[in-house]
Amino acid sequence: MISKYTYGEPFNTEATVKFVEPSFSGIKYLKFSGNEFVLDLLENDIVYGLGEQIRGINKRGWKYVNWNYDNPHHHEDTNSLYGSHNFLIVRSSNLFGVFFDYPGKITFDIGYTDRSKMIIHPATTDLDVYLIDGTSEKDIVKQFRELIGMSYVPPMWAFGYGQSRWGYKNEDDVRTVALKYEEAGIPLDSIYLDIDYMERYKDFTVNLDRFRDMKGLATEMKAKGVHLVPIIDAGVKIEPGYDVYEEGVRKGYFCKNEAGEDFVGAVWPGKVHFPDFLTPEARAWFGSKYEVLTSLGIDGFWNDMNEPAIFYSEDLLEDAINKIGELNNGNMGIDEFFAMTDMIGGLNGNEAYYDKFYHCIDGKMVKHSDVHNLYGFNMTRSANEALNLIEPDRRTLFFSRSSYIGAHRYGGIWQGDNKSWWSHILQAMQQLPALNMAGFMFVGADTGGFGCDTTEDLMLRWLQYSMFTPLFRNHSCNGTRFQELYQFKTVEAMKNMIDIRYRLIPYLYSEFLKATFGNEMMFRPIGFDYPDDRDALNVDDQLFLGNELMIAPIYKQNANGRYVYLPEEMMLVRMNSANEICTEIMPKGHHYIDVSLYELVFFIRSGKSIPMCDAASHTSELDFDTITMVGYGSSRYVLYKDDGISSDLSKTLEKIEYKN
Amino acid sequence: MISKYTYGEPFNTEATVKFVEPSFSGIKYLKFSGNEFVLDLLENDIVYGLGEQIRGINKRGWKYVNWNYDNPHHHEDTNSLYGSHNFLIVRSSNLFGVFFDYPGKITFDIGYTDRSKMIIHPATTDLDVYLIDGTSEKDIVKQFRELIGMSYVPPMWAFGYGQSRWGYKNEDDVRTVALKYEEAGIPLDSIYLDIDYMERYKDFTVNLDRFRDMKGLATEMKAKGVHLVPIIDAGVKIEPGYDVYEEGVRKGYFCKNEAGEDFVGAVWPGKVHFPDFLTPEARAWFGSKYEVLTSLGIDGFWNDMNEPAIFYSEDLLEDAINKIGELNNGNMGIDEFFAMTDMIGGLNGNEAYYDKFYHCIDGKMVKHSDVHNLYGFNMTRSANEALNLIEPDRRTLFFSRSSYIGAHRYGGIWQGDNKSWWSHILQAMQQLPALNMAGFMFVGADTGGFGCDTTEDLMLRWLQYSMFTPLFRNHSCNGTRFQELYQFKTVEAMKNMIDIRYRLIPYLYSEFLKATFGNEMMFRPIGFDYPDDRDALNVDDQLFLGNELMIAPIYKQNANGRYVYLPEEMMLVRMNSANEICTEIMPKGHHYIDVSLYELVFFIRSGKSIPMCDAASHTSELDFDTITMVGYGSSRYVLYKDDGISSDLSKTLEKIEYKN
Repeated sequence: MISKYTYGEPFNTEATVKFVEPSFSGIKYLKFSGNEFVLDLLENDIVYGLGEQIRGINKRGWKYVNWNYDNPHHHEDTNSLYGSHNFLIVRSSNLFGVFFDYPGKITFDIGYTDRSKMIIHPATTDLDVYLIDGTSEKDIVKQFRELIGMSYVPPMWAFGYGQSRWGYKNEDDVRTVALKYEEAGIPLDSIYLDIDYMERYKDFTVNLDRFRDMKGLATEMKAKGVHLVPIIDAGVKIEPGYDVYEEGVRKGYFCKNEAGEDFVGAVWPGKVHFPDFLTPEARAWFGSKYEVLTSLGIDGFWNDMNEPAIFYSEDLLEDAINKIGELNNGNMGIDEFFAMTDMIGGLNGNEAYYDKFYHCIDGKMVKHSDVHNLYGFNMTRSANEALNLIEPDRRTLFFSRSSYIGAHRYGGIWQGDNKSWWSHILQAMQQLPALNMAGFMFVGADTGGFGCDTTEDLMLRWLQYSMFTPLFRNHSCNGTRFQELYQFKTVEAMKNMIDIRYRLIPYLYSEFLKATFGNEMMFRPIGFDYPDDRDALNVDDQLFLGNELMIAPIYKQNANGRYVYLPEEMMLVRMNSANEICTEIMPKGHHYIDVSLYELVFFIRSGKSIPMCDAASHTSELDFDTITMVGYGSSRYVLYKDDGISSDLSKTLEKIEYKN
Repeated sequence: MISKYTYGEPFNTEATVKFVEPSFSGIKYLKFSGNEFVLDLLENDIVYGLGEQIRGINKRGWKYVNWNYDNPHHHEDTNSLYGSHNFLIVRSSNLFGVFFDYPGKITFDIGYTDRSKMIIHPATTDLDVYLIDGTSEKDIVKQFRELIGMSYVPPMWAFGYGQSRWGYKNEDDVRTVALKYEEAGIPLDSIYLDIDYMERYKDFTVNLDRFRDMKGLATEMKAKGVHLVPIIDAGVKIEPGYDVYEEGVRKGYFCKNEAGEDFVGAVWPGKVHFPDFLTPEARAWFGSKYEVLTSLGIDGFWNDMNEPAIFYSEDLLEDAINKIGELNNGNMGIDEFFAMTDMIGGLNGNEAYYDKFYHCIDGKMVKHSDVHNLYGFNMTRSANEALNLIEPDRRTLFFSRSSYIGAHRYGGIWQGDNKSWWSHILQAMQQLPALNMAGFMFVGADTGGFGCDTTEDLMLRWLQYSMFTPLFRNHSCNGTRFQELYQFKTVEAMKNMIDIRYRLIPYLYSEFLKATFGNEMMFRPIGFDYPDDRDALNVDDQLFLGNELMIAPIYKQNANGRYVYLPEEMMLVRMNSANEICTEIMPKGHHYIDVSLYELVFFIRSGKSIPMCDAASHTSELDFDTITMVGYGSSRYVLYKDDGISSDLSKTLEKIEYKN
């Protein structure tokens, strides 16, 4: 049962799609103090949720600030990441879910200030709070997901493996990647184009010096089974003669400053204006531009920098430079030195920018900081809604860096700019169930790590985790060590992992569809299926995947194995390559399992089995006639499949029963 | 057996104390290519060592740069920390130890560039390499430790619990800390004074406005059983009229720039000169100044900023500010913006400074960067050697931030500026055995974390780890959340942990003395005692402590227990408070154990027992007549004890046998 409580004058975020009659009684469970919501926590209570946030599956013990933020250097003491997903489930004396539908800055102090209190503080008290009672975590999630509407389904090819790097500068770089993968015999479905493909980082342009014939390249690649997926950034470069800029100015589609002029921020292209994605007109206009690229044969996009990230604004930069002059007046001391370094270091991503521009909504100027967390959501929506007109019959791949609940209906997300750190494997995994709770189903982390230098063993272990996530992309930052799989000596072991991924795609895609259609989670904490098992509730480095699998990846350097907890008897599956499968039944309980660096392990749940097809070079070559079942005997599995591309999801959906 | 190989013209670091005849044959095991040393690694080889460095107990899979560096923001991709300890043990087809006695920058690529190669690259090929064959890791360590000389032994009171914070600004702040600990009934042996106590950060001064009577305060505190431990920084403030500065200039004790003038860097005091600790004259002079404080009743010091940290130099700062002017010439673009932020961000700790000053050694100008890693070592040596003259009969507490092998004879170290991160508990623990290998016995990490905001649960878990380390200090940075134990609601649980520490001091101090006298490790990887047990070799989050204990702390948030591997039957000890002891015999093998947040667990090895005395408010009140034995029946323990203060370590040493 969902209860809705309205405070002040909430902005209509469009996060939800179902009407819920507001309650006029006081909110249940939580105490509302006038400006914050408080819950007393008992020692063993668990708080799940918050989607893309740091720390563990149980969110207790930190202060989280949901405020979409470009923070590639995130650590344990980070408070804000790229997305804001204000949904929690509390397992306390009461079990309930709660969604704070608030598009501005909102703080979740979950036992940070006081271990026995959860305090939720929105910047202003204008919000809707939805409180969900349910019989279990899974039941609460189902109700919540029905409230927020069905999640986005990408084309099936998006479940293939993709290679990306900021730094593929021209057609030959792209061809080299495709060729090297082909030569290494590693399956590949997509190559991503980062900002390098554009002409001076202008959205919807192609640099013709370096990409002379994008249409030809896209065609050539598609003939090899490889989709090109270009990036689109939020900011539109200010450059006389650039049609998107000029049209946007002329038609008033950009965010305004207090004086009513188009607001100027600086990002990769230099000075930019920001489309006012919160208006239907700007959304439709910006979205229509994607046709520039779809007309060249492009059928997938990633939307970036849409928090929106702002490196600096002209006035703050000028202030800072003037201030340096003052600080340097004669003999700079230590205080002045740190004032200078803090000031310069604080320019990139400074929050002050967000108070300086406005959206024009129904004729009213709305300060950006009041609706900040909706920006990336509506950029993805802009793309998705437009592509429904441009390509009405075909699904297009979209995923975004920034998001808010509601965006899950329009695209997937990648989990932001991470690092080549072992701890970021676990962090990515711990976000998965929280993202699924919030509706984000097509998700994945930059495999191998975006920033910093990867290592061969890190890449192998990361592959062994990411091969289970719907979005499976290897991505890295300009200037870091190259990490295409063919760069490593153990390329054969890496190929084996990608082959296994392709063998698993029928299962992964089927479970993705089932969870999406059924408003369920594809990835769940072990405790969601075993709420009465204290050991299961403690597990924070294993997940159930669909109804049949449990994953327990290795995320520590030099580990030759790991501990696992089985809440039921399960079948351990070991695979060193696509066709070597060793299985072993293990009893309920705690176990240590040996796992070599070149070996994948996962578990099949008691009495279950999964379909595996033969490996193939591309998803387009996957042959469902080659399916064999792996798992317990006398079991059955209902496979969901469709043509993988039609917009009408029910049109070609088949449910095929396999027996083992 | 130790073999010594000399390359080029090594600088005499004084890391070693025993003469070893140089070998004239080529080096064993390693291949020397002319400028680097290479070893082929097999899949399961293990590389131990490197002292204070990042990553796990097995150092494989990263590139470490030993170059003493002030890096409070260290993560997985850090290469350099505060100390440089160039000693490794390789468990490969051969088992051997190797020490690269080189005081400049040296890189250890241990399977980073190529997983199957270890490549050691000193910046120049002027070094001694000591190669040690032995029957076991423990045997190799013993030989190495004999080579480098006996480790420093602090006064016994240094094993008490200490409270520190950058931010105790005056006498009343200090009194408040002492009083609040007293009121909470929490044992306390020391309060640390950070740079706040000095007059404008000038070494060997006391700010008389805020510390009117340091001698009175020290006396008052000592009457309460609390020692004041002030900080001493490496840089000497340039200020006409300041005697230390003027004398140093007059006598030529400071490092020089290329023109032969005293080199100027900027640190906390503003512009400073750096004493040339590499000369005996400057060491004796600077060391003699400690008497300013010992004459006030001070008997312990921590030496900081002695990498040496340099925030900026006048010329690079001026260059940077001029460059900003150029970059801002008209219309700053993105490239210019990042050039500016990188340049300003790169001023603090810039390596270029170390090429700009010189030591004068035996009349020869030696560029600082060639001997950089020796600076902190010789600062500690300066203090220790001087105090041997000032207080010849009494041990003084010294520990340093920066170090090199050799410094272990003169003082302890704390493990540098860390963060209030869960991962930094494990990181601190993983450094312990590597530090012991390198001779550093009096060691410990800033408990609760120095930078960032701590949480109550983090502090509890950190206490449950740090209570086993010789140096046990709670320290935090100005501006972070207060973390004195009385600041928390669970102060009672925290008191229980400190009480237990005091009960353990007889054992900890005894094992410290045994290991120090015997050139053994107090903290060892499990594999050092069980080299034939593959599971034991894999363990990287448990340590043997002395001959009787195994520690296995909890270092994950919201964990209600952990996995442990017992390579032999052991006794699990659970303590919720000083006098609640529950024991349980557990068989060899893998186990999951439940551990509440308020509970300490550790293990007593098969057939062993340990002495525990009654808890006391201060080490001075510990009563060895209250010793009871905990552990296996029919076991005995030989306790090493002395008066805890005499410089002559043998004078009052007793060995007392206890039976259980």
